[in-house]
Amino acid sequence: MDLQPLLDAATFNDDGLVAAIAQDDATGDVLMLAYMNRETLQQTLETGVMTYWSRSRQKVWVKGETSGNVQRVKSAYVDCDGDALLFRIEQVGGAACHTGHRSCFYRKVEDGELETVGEPVFDADSVYK
Amino acid sequence: MDLQPLLDAATFNDDGLVAAIAQDDATGDVLMLAYMNRETLQQTLETGVMTYWSRSRQKVWVKGETSGNVQRVKSAYVDCDGDALLFRIEQVGGAACHTGHRSCFYRKVEDGELETVGEPVFDADSVYK
Repeated sequence: MDLQPLLDAATFNDDGLVAAIAQDDATGDVLMLAYMNRETLQQTLETGVMTYWSRSRQKVWVKGETSGNVQRVKSAYVDCDGDALLFRIEQVGGAACHTGHRSCFYRKVEDGELETVGEPVFDADSVYK
Repeated sequence: MDLQPLLDAATFNDDGLVAAIAQDDATGDVLMLAYMNRETLQQTLETGVMTYWSRSRQKVWVKGETSGNVQRVKSAYVDCDGDALLFRIEQVGGAACHTGHRSCFYRKVEDGELETVGEPVFDADSVYK
């Protein structure tokens, strides 16, 4: 997929980052929000695999390089002012979150408490050693 | 809905902001990404109406206060590290974007170009005078 127009339309903030939402193309579930810089957005378009900029580790982050749960780009969108991107993706392995949950948004507000939605797909302790 | 646990779990960045994704509860479509500070997150939980912090205008932004297209909170989620929130909402009037489009993500990468997805729901020029 040629994502050059997306690269041109993206507006990077003072830190050189643009927000990127990953949505499960099959279910519509929002899986995670992370950030890309120009380099990792370019890499995403070249490889078709979601590649973020890790703000905590300050390095290129090919999502799933450790767990094997990569995200394959199915389609890509840019919002009205260009500072957010939406990628509909195929989540290999079924889990996006480093905790082993399908979605990073696995904590839901219910009856005044945060409740965990669903069981972890994989055991995080056995994947990240 | 008591959103106090969400307020406690949210991690605000150096600018005092947390990212907030609005997803159409009926269709699953991602409508927009904007930001909240502690005050507007509190206001969102108190009113049940999505209230952002406008970074460009530096003011409280009750989404839809001008167009009438408010967003009613149906459910709320927080991600694993607390720096992103996901709200499933009812989009009154059917359009979230100030351009009149249903979703702010109305530009899709297709065949190497950005193509507009769908027709505007309302005429932006007649709403914002």
